[in-house]
Amino acid sequence: MSNVTPDWIAVDWGTSNMRAWAMSASGTVLAEARSDKGMGELARDEFELELLRTVGDWISGPMTVVACGMVGSRQGWVEAPYASVPCPALPDGLARAPVQNPDLQVHVIPGIKQTDPADVMRGEETQIAGFLARNKNWDGVICLPGTHTKWVHVSADEVVSFQTFMTGELFATISEHTVLRHSLATEGWDDDAFSNAVEEAMARPERLAARLFSLRADGLLNDLSAVSARARLSGLLIGAELAAAKPYWLGQQIAVIGASGISKRYVDALALLHAPATQVQASAITVAGLTAAYQRLKG
Amino acid sequence: MSNVTPDWIAVDWGTSNMRAWAMSASGTVLAEARSDKGMGELARDEFELELLRTVGDWISGPMTVVACGMVGSRQGWVEAPYASVPCPALPDGLARAPVQNPDLQVHVIPGIKQTDPADVMRGEETQIAGFLARNKNWDGVICLPGTHTKWVHVSADEVVSFQTFMTGELFATISEHTVLRHSLATEGWDDDAFSNAVEEAMARPERLAARLFSLRADGLLNDLSAVSARARLSGLLIGAELAAAKPYWLGQQIAVIGASGISKRYVDALALLHAPATQVQASAITVAGLTAAYQRLKG
Repeated sequence: MSNVTPDWIAVDWGTSNMRAWAMSASGTVLAEARSDKGMGELARDEFELELLRTVGDWISGPMTVVACGMVGSRQGWVEAPYASVPCPALPDGLARAPVQNPDLQVHVIPGIKQTDPADVMRGEETQIAGFLARNKNWDGVICLPGTHTKWVHVSADEVVSFQTFMTGELFATISEHTVLRHSLATEGWDDDAFSNAVEEAMARPERLAARLFSLRADGLLNDLSAVSARARLSGLLIGAELAAAKPYWLGQQIAVIGASGISKRYVDALALLHAPATQVQASAITVAGLTAAYQRLKG
Repeated sequence: MSNVTPDWIAVDWGTSNMRAWAMSASGTVLAEARSDKGMGELARDEFELELLRTVGDWISGPMTVVACGMVGSRQGWVEAPYASVPCPALPDGLARAPVQNPDLQVHVIPGIKQTDPADVMRGEETQIAGFLARNKNWDGVICLPGTHTKWVHVSADEVVSFQTFMTGELFATISEHTVLRHSLATEGWDDDAFSNAVEEAMARPERLAARLFSLRADGLLNDLSAVSARARLSGLLIGAELAAAKPYWLGQQIAVIGASGISKRYVDALALLHAPATQVQASAITVAGLTAAYQRLKG
């Protein structure tokens, strides 16, 4: 039997995997667990079993679970309907997931939607709430890089507006599924190639589809290395995104919340544009957001 | 035994398939054949066998074959080195492919390269040559839509400069391999959605990655249909390309050479921008270009 006896359990359950933390009431992490069964692989009645399989040895009596992410989507454990902007990052009204185990109470945090331009987030709202819990009265713009990068305008503790860019998914799909897969390294980095590409893309963002093919042609004709081509592709895509997101970041306080590698690329690119940004580690902030939701539930 | 007795054989051998035409000396098509063995599937010593398997019953004595396309790449039957711009669409110096059969002479048309910005074409040069053979003293811009769309500036019977856009491959890979695959129909069309997207992309081309995600969000929140989303994706990508290619097409005579469906989209999009373009059927033009190469060889 486990010697971890949490007061509650925090869960971040996304499309492709799940992370859970055994928590004290005050928000200290006691233990951590993971599963590679994401929402995408589970039917509605399989979530409870997977949760118990992953964290069952933390549970020896009544237990509160607070979860965020795609677990709350229509295809998830329970649909937690979107709140509409402007709204607090943690809107009222957690959804209760259906469970068999009488000791278990599972609360799911709603996502946030915006009607015009149409946009949705699910999971990022909890990171924003965690960031705001740690940075009281912070106004500015939060960038959350990932498969679908979000730019979020925050003011007076509310999410005012946001915009999602498919940049991360474009990078992955272009790298894996187009003719450029022959020209791109799967790892390695070239700072100069990245910086030059960011600046070119900012200056003439419409040339993206032409510059993509030039990665191939520069490899064939000018010996562009596969590592430089990879950094250049990243710079072209992030540069085009920054050109479009300029109304968000220009003249604003900026925080970048995400995995360290991709976050550093955004911070570096913003620095080239004379826009200093603070880099924030994602998983600690997610736990802080789940803790804020738990404390409101219990308060 | 076949009753077709051509004077020569024209071949367009691309990455994914091959087309061949039994030809009279004057350029009349007597018969046609196809193979689904493209350059991508064949080792160097397999091309001759595949050619004979496909058109062997047209051959009863010495036979000249003129071929264009990826068959002339480094991974093809024989490398036909690129000519450099500015140059005629049919540069001098056909490459001779190695053959076992003493009756067979196979000539491969070189591609064209440009050093700065780096770019290459292979196959399109033959279509351009065919178009110019039928339209003497034509100056202007030729657009060749496809997986990798080319814009080519032609003057005084020479290719002056060109630029390749990965638009077609982006459309295919985004449709098949990203989250948008859930939001896009695989066929069907919506003219208004296409036109609006072209105009939006022309006006703010840098917003591409954000507009892509909006196809998903508009489906979730605003009931955007999968058919409209497909037409909108095409419009966004073609619109961004036309924004970047504007220095090519603005104020120029324009010919669009390609398959009829995709060519019509480019002609429609150019019409929205008050740039009338002539649509030209691709395969007849390819045969005309191969014929021009044959006649020069024999002349």
